[in-house]
Amino acid sequence: MTAAQTPYSYRRTVRWGDCDPAGIVYTPRVFDYVLEAMEGWYRDVVGIDWVTLNQGMGMGAPTVRAECDFMRAPRPDQVLDLEVRIERVGRGSLTFVVTATDEAGQHYFRSLMVACFVARGEDGFDSIAIPDDIRQRIVAYQGACGDS
Amino acid sequence: MTAAQTPYSYRRTVRWGDCDPAGIVYTPRVFDYVLEAMEGWYRDVVGIDWVTLNQGMGMGAPTVRAECDFMRAPRPDQVLDLEVRIERVGRGSLTFVVTATDEAGQHYFRSLMVACFVARGEDGFDSIAIPDDIRQRIVAYQGACGDS
Amino acid sequence: MTAAQTPYSYRRTVRWGDCDPAGIVYTPRVFDYVLEAMEGWYRDVVGIDWVTLNQGMGMGAPTVRAECDFMRAPRPDQVLDLEVRIERVGRGSLTFVVTATDEAGQHYFRSLMVACFVARGEDGFDSIAIPDDIRQRIVAYQGACGDS
Amino acid sequence: MTAAQTPYSYRRTVRWGDCDPAGIVYTPRVFDYVLEAMEGWYRDVVGIDWVTLNQGMGMGAPTVRAECDFMRAPRPDQVLDLEVRIERVGRGSLTFVVTATDEAGQHYFRSLMVACFVARGEDGFDSIAIPDDIRQRIVAYQGACGDS
Repeated sequence: MTAAQTPYSYRRTVRWGDCDPAGIVYTPRVFDYVLEAMEGWYRDVVGIDWVTLNQGMGMGAPTVRAECDFMRAPRPDQVLDLEVRIERVGRGSLTFVVTATDEAGQHYFRSLMVACFVARGEDGFDSIAIPDDIRQRIVAYQGACGDS
Repeated sequence: MTAAQTPYSYRRTVRWGDCDPAGIVYTPRVFDYVLEAMEGWYRDVVGIDWVTLNQGMGMGAPTVRAECDFMRAPRPDQVLDLEVRIERVGRGSLTFVVTATDEAGQHYFRSLMVACFVARGEDGFDSIAIPDDIRQRIVAYQGACGDS
Repeated sequence: MTAAQTPYSYRRTVRWGDCDPAGIVYTPRVFDYVLEAMEGWYRDVVGIDWVTLNQGMGMGAPTVRAECDFMRAPRPDQVLDLEVRIERVGRGSLTFVVTATDEAGQHYFRSLMVACFVARGEDGFDSIAIPDDIRQRIVAYQGACGDS
Repeated sequence: MTAAQTPYSYRRTVRWGDCDPAGIVYTPRVFDYVLEAMEGWYRDVVGIDWVTLNQGMGMGAPTVRAECDFMRAPRPDQVLDLEVRIERVGRGSLTFVVTATDEAGQHYFRSLMVACFVARGEDGFDSIAIPDDIRQRIVAYQGACGDS
């Protein structure tokens, strides 16, 4: 694990263009925020960015299940802090919980995302076990968060 | 209910720009597709577009919960048919199930979305019961789909 | 040239989620529409989709200059027809003019896009002349549009 | 003018999801970056965010012309600094030049955007002169940048 903060947090300001004519964040943009937070987590906590994982290592960790509960609708200029925690490390799958709060601690949404590790085979991508070195860093992070 | 097809189906071609450097649809775009299908369903089945609902009637039906299971990753130029069905009509909430298949009938993803009806009050938006005329059209659609 | 219509036209309905809190299309989405029209034009007129061009042929045609004049701001549910014409075929570059109108013939925007053909070399991508077979189809299309 | 930096600069990291299957930023996303930089400039330099301008003041400054030259294609994780300068202050229009560079000073793109001030009238939005207090802050910024 790199020297990233624990738990990992990603700050995101809601943009005018993320919002719809009702003046609130358009629902799918919330998943953009969640994926951005996860992308940063891979890079800063696991130490592997998605270009390296995909093109350098011939692997990937696509989302196989996504969930989100929306408590409050964010508006333009709202600053959100998205905290990334690991709920479960399976043999080949990883379950994230990403929660968004403002500076006052009010909750905006809570997302659960399940990713499944795959590697390029002869005929497309096959499911694999999470490689050991990656697993160790994830388990260490989980422990540092007090979630293991 | 208008003379829309039953169940309502929305055809969407995957764009190059919807896909990421791994060559598959970037996860959040799937929720763009789901919301586009729901937007069309409101307009064509309920008979009320979102601008009218929001600005004309002072109402809304924001998503309070989103789920999606991903079976297959779509690639550019893939044509998907998103079928919109109503799983449950609550007092003030509506549960959609949106499934995406290709022409061969293969499944790509299945999303469950819960919307909650609200109306503009003195101090923001308040939860309301689904208005009767809207409810009747939804229940009729549900019946026509054989889902009630 | 395939049996595509001449000039090539791409129909796009403005989505709720393409619009911002002012209720009109968020400016960058117009370039999404223009690129979608160009993507369809390559596939249907030139006969080569972007995945094939990029991954199969090791080539690309990235945008090197983009321009757009906005006459009217589209709103949700507006149906736009984007017409794709070729203003100039250079040795290695291609200049598109894409105009968007509604069914009444009112203009919404007019975009000029310059693409530059490249091929994967030893050290990244290098500029190339437009391959002859592609050039011939483009010139034929231009002629069929009465633009040559 | 507030105590914002001069010239105003907006830092943006390229996301995996901003990039297409060719591995580079999908062209329309560049205009997302440019608009985000302009949105921040209004808030931090002029002192008026777009929600206040639109909903509080009944005004807007929609883009009437957009241009961009692309020198280099950014890839995921590239950190870009977008500098916002004012090329011209017209009676009712404002011309921005936004340039993106990396930390080594290499140029990625240069965009020119023309916005036109409007106010809500009886029948839609009408062109107006830039309000005096806004104009003064813009001219002061332009001077501080050495561009007037």
